[in-house]
Amino acid sequence: MEIGIDTFAAATFNDTEDKATRNVNAIAKLLERIEHADQAGLDVFGIGEHHRKEFLDSAPTIILAAAAARTKRIRLTSAVTVISAADPVRVFQNFATLDLISNGRAEIVAGRGSFIEAYPLFGYKLEDYDALFSEKLNLLLKIRDNETVTWSGKFRAPLTNQAIYPRPVQPSLPIWLGVGGTPQSFIRAGTLGLPLMVAIIGGETHRFRPLIDLYREAGAKAGHAPDRLKVGLHSIGYVGNTTREATNDFYPGYAETFTKIGKERGWPPVTRMQYDAQTGPTGALLVGSPLEVAEKILRHSEALGGISRVTFQMDQAALPQQKLLKSIELIGEQLIPLISQHSI
Amino acid sequence: MEIGIDTFAAATFNDTEDKATRNVNAIAKLLERIEHADQAGLDVFGIGEHHRKEFLDSAPTIILAAAAARTKRIRLTSAVTVISAADPVRVFQNFATLDLISNGRAEIVAGRGSFIEAYPLFGYKLEDYDALFSEKLNLLLKIRDNETVTWSGKFRAPLTNQAIYPRPVQPSLPIWLGVGGTPQSFIRAGTLGLPLMVAIIGGETHRFRPLIDLYREAGAKAGHAPDRLKVGLHSIGYVGNTTREATNDFYPGYAETFTKIGKERGWPPVTRMQYDAQTGPTGALLVGSPLEVAEKILRHSEALGGISRVTFQMDQAALPQQKLLKSIELIGEQLIPLISQHSI
Repeated sequence: MEIGIDTFAAATFNDTEDKATRNVNAIAKLLERIEHADQAGLDVFGIGEHHRKEFLDSAPTIILAAAAARTKRIRLTSAVTVISAADPVRVFQNFATLDLISNGRAEIVAGRGSFIEAYPLFGYKLEDYDALFSEKLNLLLKIRDNETVTWSGKFRAPLTNQAIYPRPVQPSLPIWLGVGGTPQSFIRAGTLGLPLMVAIIGGETHRFRPLIDLYREAGAKAGHAPDRLKVGLHSIGYVGNTTREATNDFYPGYAETFTKIGKERGWPPVTRMQYDAQTGPTGALLVGSPLEVAEKILRHSEALGGISRVTFQMDQAALPQQKLLKSIELIGEQLIPLISQHSI
Repeated sequence: MEIGIDTFAAATFNDTEDKATRNVNAIAKLLERIEHADQAGLDVFGIGEHHRKEFLDSAPTIILAAAAARTKRIRLTSAVTVISAADPVRVFQNFATLDLISNGRAEIVAGRGSFIEAYPLFGYKLEDYDALFSEKLNLLLKIRDNETVTWSGKFRAPLTNQAIYPRPVQPSLPIWLGVGGTPQSFIRAGTLGLPLMVAIIGGETHRFRPLIDLYREAGAKAGHAPDRLKVGLHSIGYVGNTTREATNDFYPGYAETFTKIGKERGWPPVTRMQYDAQTGPTGALLVGSPLEVAEKILRHSEALGGISRVTFQMDQAALPQQKLLKSIELIGEQLIPLISQHSI
């Protein structure tokens, strides 16, 4: 099982620095965390895509390229690329270039995005939400699988025997489908035989089993071998020396961030009781000691019929850099060996 | 005067490696040259944008971001960004992110491109060549100068009070206009008060004086202070220990590349006699010893009424990496001090 970190490159709002310097520091610290994750033996680092003040990740491949230049082994992925609002030609060019820079460590997680600000920014209508994703994914896969492409669709100019460069060094650049809770998305991923990255950021993880079954059934029906139908989990999580330390450290920033997002989305404010439930044995939050979180990951994997990648998103709780670096270390030095011993 | 290097990230066609590995190595060597230029004290490194097999620079900001992570002082620019075929929102996001990563070292040279493959690839018509550039440049400048933008045009969806993030750390991200020989382009740059990057890749440099006068006159007429009306020179050049060594080293690859490009554009094949004329005292090619090239740059500067940046494009002649690194060193250690002593 691969273990990694996802981030949305949160902007910090520290009043002792001016705004521009703050953002330079936030990016420098993020790059430091990626280097640290590489050295600690984590498998993958992912960067989201948002187009809003709170996050610095509107151009995730730019940050990934900087990370590629400073790392040796860790795989570098988007989490997710909002392909619905992007041009698949540019997306492919960016990731293919990243693949050359990183010597074959680039991956794409393609999704529709959980925020919606990209749609009006790039001139798309929310009523085309599904049609956009379907068409752009189709083109992206076509470009991945063919150097020269002939294609036409509704949302982008046609291509007529046109070649897209550069080509990546990996024979087939990995493209995952990033999904939330829409059954149709699970079925689409299975039918296409694409690996699936499921964002489970709240509730109880095992409840996603029926959706994951839909994915595996659709994949089998379409004739894809079971080993191609990989499932990954994007989680919110943070590992500390002890479960008590980890949950207490993580709570204040977590509560603030999710209460704020909740206002926009109509969720109730976060409470400690609800948080404690979600950091408990069946809850989605991977917060605790290395041992407790390792056991939880294995429990989740069993409940979901086997998962092959888990990522922790830990930096939305505004924890100090030293705590985040320490958490990455604990994941690399303690959690990963525990998982390796107990998974096949 | 600032001295730098420009590159198109040429793919190499070395038969002893497989194609994908070749491209990984070509990018790794390019990054090594940028690091070397940073350490040797060069001021700027630029990467072009092309969408064809021979060049690996379809996503130049991705390469620049990797370079940013490995360098400390050198400024990082496009050379040029084909904004006519791009979305100015994405262009700005890429460069603003690069600016954060590099702590304020990002610049854009915006141009129309000297090749035309970007137009059909991104669904634009060559008949809109000038209208596209003008509209996209206008939007790019608006985004640079305002966090929140309201805008509408012909070639991109409108923006209504929409904010573009992240914001760069430089208070005003430098945007140059990259021009070839079109008088209208020089006038546009002057009228807008933008610094001008002139590509002079053949002929005699002093012959560009009337065009540069057009730029300065248009700038003065529009009320821009003379010190805002900077002129830079993108040149083909290569510095060796002696002029004889440099010109002989550079010729074979230069002749091959420009004969090939010439076939596509209807130019006659390159001859040694023509090459010798262009490497001579008034010719555009900056090939020679540090002293000879320094003198030539100062001569060009005087002939053009003062230039504030010169870049060398040296890697299209397929010279070995050691020669290119040595040339960068000679520029940093010998040519730059000579220029500093003699220019104001």
